[in-house]
Amino acid sequence: MSRPVPLKRSDFPVTQPLQTRWSDNDIYGHMNNTVHYQLFDTALNMWLIGEGLLEPSRSETIGVVVDTGCSYFAELAYPQPVLAGLRVERLGRSSVTYRIALFGDGETAAAQGHFTQVLVDRKTRRPVPISDRWRDVLTRASIPEPCS
Amino acid sequence: MSRPVPLKRSDFPVTQPLQTRWSDNDIYGHMNNTVHYQLFDTALNMWLIGEGLLEPSRSETIGVVVDTGCSYFAELAYPQPVLAGLRVERLGRSSVTYRIALFGDGETAAAQGHFTQVLVDRKTRRPVPISDRWRDVLTRASIPEPCS
Amino acid sequence: MSRPVPLKRSDFPVTQPLQTRWSDNDIYGHMNNTVHYQLFDTALNMWLIGEGLLEPSRSETIGVVVDTGCSYFAELAYPQPVLAGLRVERLGRSSVTYRIALFGDGETAAAQGHFTQVLVDRKTRRPVPISDRWRDVLTRASIPEPCS
Amino acid sequence: MSRPVPLKRSDFPVTQPLQTRWSDNDIYGHMNNTVHYQLFDTALNMWLIGEGLLEPSRSETIGVVVDTGCSYFAELAYPQPVLAGLRVERLGRSSVTYRIALFGDGETAAAQGHFTQVLVDRKTRRPVPISDRWRDVLTRASIPEPCS
Repeated sequence: MSRPVPLKRSDFPVTQPLQTRWSDNDIYGHMNNTVHYQLFDTALNMWLIGEGLLEPSRSETIGVVVDTGCSYFAELAYPQPVLAGLRVERLGRSSVTYRIALFGDGETAAAQGHFTQVLVDRKTRRPVPISDRWRDVLTRASIPEPCS
Repeated sequence: MSRPVPLKRSDFPVTQPLQTRWSDNDIYGHMNNTVHYQLFDTALNMWLIGEGLLEPSRSETIGVVVDTGCSYFAELAYPQPVLAGLRVERLGRSSVTYRIALFGDGETAAAQGHFTQVLVDRKTRRPVPISDRWRDVLTRASIPEPCS
Repeated sequence: MSRPVPLKRSDFPVTQPLQTRWSDNDIYGHMNNTVHYQLFDTALNMWLIGEGLLEPSRSETIGVVVDTGCSYFAELAYPQPVLAGLRVERLGRSSVTYRIALFGDGETAAAQGHFTQVLVDRKTRRPVPISDRWRDVLTRASIPEPCS
Repeated sequence: MSRPVPLKRSDFPVTQPLQTRWSDNDIYGHMNNTVHYQLFDTALNMWLIGEGLLEPSRSETIGVVVDTGCSYFAELAYPQPVLAGLRVERLGRSSVTYRIALFGDGETAAAQGHFTQVLVDRKTRRPVPISDRWRDVLTRASIPEPCS
């Protein structure tokens, strides 16, 4: 398994400051590995809500998670504040993969991972095509294609 | 059981802004009743750490919780920000009871409760008297005694 | 503040075996005080679901928590299994107060508390009278009234 | 991204029955994607503790998580019981990668992922070689190499 290279703050077009909680630290005195995913979820949805794309209790289209992953490079711990960096890595017909990183004090990510959602109809839970409104916002948060 | 009266923001000498998380909302679309306690824990310890009284992974004296309670007046929900209000309600030889409230948009508490800690030695877990340094800080966060 | 006396396993007509999780232990190596409430919630709703009174995603009548509290007598910790004891302490027109205790190895409770729910209409969130079906089940889980 | 194929119960030499909790379900009425990792953590460490390899508050050697991932195939939800399947997928000098799956009612996994730990010294947090005692247990939980 090759280890990914930690990204930098400047690699992310979207950022969200996040708080840590007392209960985030486990018996080893650092943020438990599952909390990183709570922060991914929180930062991503905060951004979608802020962009007017999602209303968790009402939207007809919701995002259902189909794949997640995280690499841990350095410890994070309560009460340290965290910054989440977010960008769109891959945009399909109904699915979108985000790259998300968590930064502590440093310039490089303490942890980074991915989060793949499929947009589905709230009731039927069947995939729906990504609407133009979503696509516009997601495209703005995408990493630019390399110049040819 | 008589219901307590919701306190106001101005009733608290110490306040801490707090974030909510995606996972705070349960199936009913509001903050699950257990999350309020996570926020109590987080706000209180943030304050103790900020005042230089506690270093969670090192302090010889730690606070062990012996009693907690919460009354819920109004729903809170992610992604809403929350303000915690904190004051010392009772200061004993080794124990301290905090009054903690959570505010959403309104002027009165959405939830309020208490949190009683006994200060103990980290290793022996035996109660220790509250030191002068702690007592000074806790007294400043106490509600003033009514004038006689 | 007078401390409650820990109840015994035999004081509870309903019991539920519960598991602990790695993330339940905080930096002090014991179950964080907020997890006790997660276990209360889990044991109580498991029982209501098992009795056919509640379907979390469908029931027209749901229980909304208005008051909770817990006294902590002894540490619990992952990976220790826990037994929850449950009984109905007070049965009102729309509200019910449960006494819930958590047992580790011992005969007396490691923690015990209360949980007061108001039954409301799922949509309007207005209180509804406790139905006869609920009342029958809740009465069976009540502590007997002392003989006169 | 190619989706992994869901494994079967019989693909796992080690299994652990797990409970779900009320708070596991998010606003969409199913187990939040971060809870799967809490269950991975819980099942894996329960097994390590049961095999006598780990005492969370005392062991000189502890496992620190460096990489995790999960694919979600089907919804899980409280109050459904879950079975975790566990096997060792890769055994290095200091690191071990586990394959972990969660099963609901079905024969194939509702979710499956990986969990890579590096064994480190509790104090220095520097990697240590996997001891013979650990290696014996981990080898027994490995998938057999295909016959040549």
